[in-house]
Amino acid sequence: RINGQRLGDTLMAMAAIGATDKGGCNRQALTDLDKQGRDLFVQWCEDAGCSVTVDAMGNIFARRPGTNPDLPAVLTGSHLDTQPTGGRFDGVYGVLAGLEVVRSLNDAGIETEAPLEVAVWTNEEGARFSPAMIGSGVWSGEFDLDYAYARSDKEGKTFGDELARIGYKGKAPAVARPLSAAFEVHIEQGPILEAEQKQIGVLSGVQGMHWYDLTLIGQPCHAGPSPMETRRDPFMGLHRILSELYQLAAEHGPWARATFGDIRVEPGSRNTVPEKLVLAVDLRHPDQKTLDAMDQRFREIAARVADETGLEHQIRDEWRSPAVAFDPKCVEAVRSSVAELGYSNKEMVSGAGHDSVYISRVAPTSMIFVPCEKGLSHNEAENAKAEDLEAGANVLLHAMLKMANK
Amino acid sequence: RINGQRLGDTLMAMAAIGATDKGGCNRQALTDLDKQGRDLFVQWCEDAGCSVTVDAMGNIFARRPGTNPDLPAVLTGSHLDTQPTGGRFDGVYGVLAGLEVVRSLNDAGIETEAPLEVAVWTNEEGARFSPAMIGSGVWSGEFDLDYAYARSDKEGKTFGDELARIGYKGKAPAVARPLSAAFEVHIEQGPILEAEQKQIGVLSGVQGMHWYDLTLIGQPCHAGPSPMETRRDPFMGLHRILSELYQLAAEHGPWARATFGDIRVEPGSRNTVPEKLVLAVDLRHPDQKTLDAMDQRFREIAARVADETGLEHQIRDEWRSPAVAFDPKCVEAVRSSVAELGYSNKEMVSGAGHDSVYISRVAPTSMIFVPCEKGLSHNEAENAKAEDLEAGANVLLHAMLKMANK
Ligand SMILES: NC(=O)NCCC(=O)O
Ligand SMILES: NC(=O)NCCC(=O)O
Repeated sequence: RINGQRLGDTLMAMAAIGATDKGGCNRQALTDLDKQGRDLFVQWCEDAGCSVTVDAMGNIFARRPGTNPDLPAVLTGSHLDTQPTGGRFDGVYGVLAGLEVVRSLNDAGIETEAPLEVAVWTNEEGARFSPAMIGSGVWSGEFDLDYAYARSDKEGKTFGDELARIGYKGKAPAVARPLSAAFEVHIEQGPILEAEQKQIGVLSGVQGMHWYDLTLIGQPCHAGPSPMETRRDPFMGLHRILSELYQLAAEHGPWARATFGDIRVEPGSRNTVPEKLVLAVDLRHPDQKTLDAMDQRFREIAARVADETGLEHQIRDEWRSPAVAFDPKCVEAVRSSVAELGYSNKEMVSGAGHDSVYISRVAPTSMIFVPCEKGLSHNEAENAKAEDLEAGANVLLHAMLKMANK
Repeated sequence: RINGQRLGDTLMAMAAIGATDKGGCNRQALTDLDKQGRDLFVQWCEDAGCSVTVDAMGNIFARRPGTNPDLPAVLTGSHLDTQPTGGRFDGVYGVLAGLEVVRSLNDAGIETEAPLEVAVWTNEEGARFSPAMIGSGVWSGEFDLDYAYARSDKEGKTFGDELARIGYKGKAPAVARPLSAAFEVHIEQGPILEAEQKQIGVLSGVQGMHWYDLTLIGQPCHAGPSPMETRRDPFMGLHRILSELYQLAAEHGPWARATFGDIRVEPGSRNTVPEKLVLAVDLRHPDQKTLDAMDQRFREIAARVADETGLEHQIRDEWRSPAVAFDPKCVEAVRSSVAELGYSNKEMVSGAGHDSVYISRVAPTSMIFVPCEKGLSHNEAENAKAEDLEAGANVLLHAMLKMANK
């Protein structure tokens, strides 16, 4: 069993870096604070006897050797970057639970056949640089390195420049190596486990998600003398599109999601009807066919409303992450570990994207969830119980040992 | 009669400063380009024999002496600042038509009893620094100088600092002096004169306008795992409020206006339901009682929708400019000048705010409109016919002479 007290202390030490007034964390990818968090993690891993490698995407791999040098590693990990209104557990818990597994094995003097690795994946959140999960995405072959380097934040700073600036553009190629298995433990970020009073989520997969930029283009004109009837006003299209997309999500049942996290306006002058609105659209569904149908309807709605309100519209596909099914052997390793440890549990699908989505393309992968207070995440009030965090790390320990000693 | 060719050339020389790709002008208040435009205007006025004064608000007054030093001046003027997507005529025409009146009188060797003044009012547009008409507003006693100096743009730069930076924080107090009369000629910025094929608008007043910031506050949460039903999503309130406000404008007949020129989001992350939206709301009506009723309904709509969608809301009153009736003698001076000159004309109310709104509180004031191509203003395609610009300046000349020689 892992040391729950030490895991909690380590989480709080990391949470101090980028701590916000409201008790959360703002440690966005490739900022100075991200560098501080990475430096601290690397120090902890070296103190625990691991060798540390950084790849060209800034992904960090801390390796604990195994007894059989021929076996590929069993990997765990997640991310240290946060949302602007981020919490203390999203991602960080998965990284530090991996470190706690290594420390606990060291304490108990247990060696494994396969080596173990704890990974930090760069820019999982997609908040500063879109898309999400780009560090694991490049590593797994979903994105080109050049594409990633060229992504820019709202101030126009590029991923490549910022990665070099914080000193984490590593020498190792950002390319998948063979792995025996990969696991990721994460807070649920939703309300299900708490509501059903289950301590562990055994994940069978991740829902599909599509990101778009919807642009509505009208005609700027004066707020006073311009008659309402002749305006080509992007807000006149926007409110109808929002209304229909919320309706669309409602029609596709309790699992469909429609989220609008960002909006930009041009020119943004109080007494001028805008020329342009750019809305960030995030549609999700666990069933890829349903999500494809929602995608189709979204395009129809935008085209029809734009037409009826005299606007031009553009839909840019920003990112697609199709629904994922995890590796049955890895899922079984989690399921049997939970059973051994006697935790209450539920089999479920993740509503959030995780690095495991991309890892699962190149290695047998699965995930473990722990409950999240009020289901609140991407919020500074994000919280989890110490006993649940400990339980999740114990499941991770058992699952990793199963796959490392066969 | 004025020199239409020279007026057109002067307009085009000013339009070169801040000229945009699409044929418009982006010469926002207190920028380096605004300084260039002001410097050029001051040069022209000095060349025309005027003495130039700058007041503490950066308002510029170019004075042509009269034969009777005891008479207060007859003033004309408008503004040189533009919208971000501004045109070549909005404001600029009123300033340069005033200069053309002075030049034409010089050419003809005509002296007036009362002195004439051509004014440039600072930051009329309200685009960079809210509210609009703040230069004439301080001068007329509507706003305090300190309030104006503290206004800040989106980058947090203050009006006072920017005014000093461009060298137009003048020594003269920004306080109204007695005037015999004030006139302002402007493009209509709406479609009425063009549609009715009238060359001159004889203005009896200006409609009322209210500016607000509406803030909707929800709860940030994750775009994936968070169920739609439990979200407190500012966009869920926004689309309903927009829809009801457009409906409100439609109910209050052809003259009511509802415009949303700007929106801000926090934190603005694609996969996080926003914490906050701030919407700029501009409501207008020529009848102040009707506008007050719209104001009331706006507050009810925002409160009800926020309540029904689980949001908090705040309404900040940014600016109120009540409906204005111009001075009957000045209106009559315009009306009789138009009749003498034989131009087709229409009596009307302005849909846009103008410096004359504030001037009218301290001096007998009225305005003259010329047609605006397709009614399009606050748009780079803004256009007006040379013959209409000439006609408007002729009316201005006659009206000023009437009030200066009595
Ligand atoms: N776990 C998490 O917040 N992932 C970001 C990707 C997503 O938007 O689901
Ligand atoms: N003329 C003009 O554009 N004025 C700005 C004030 C307003 O919004 O009406």
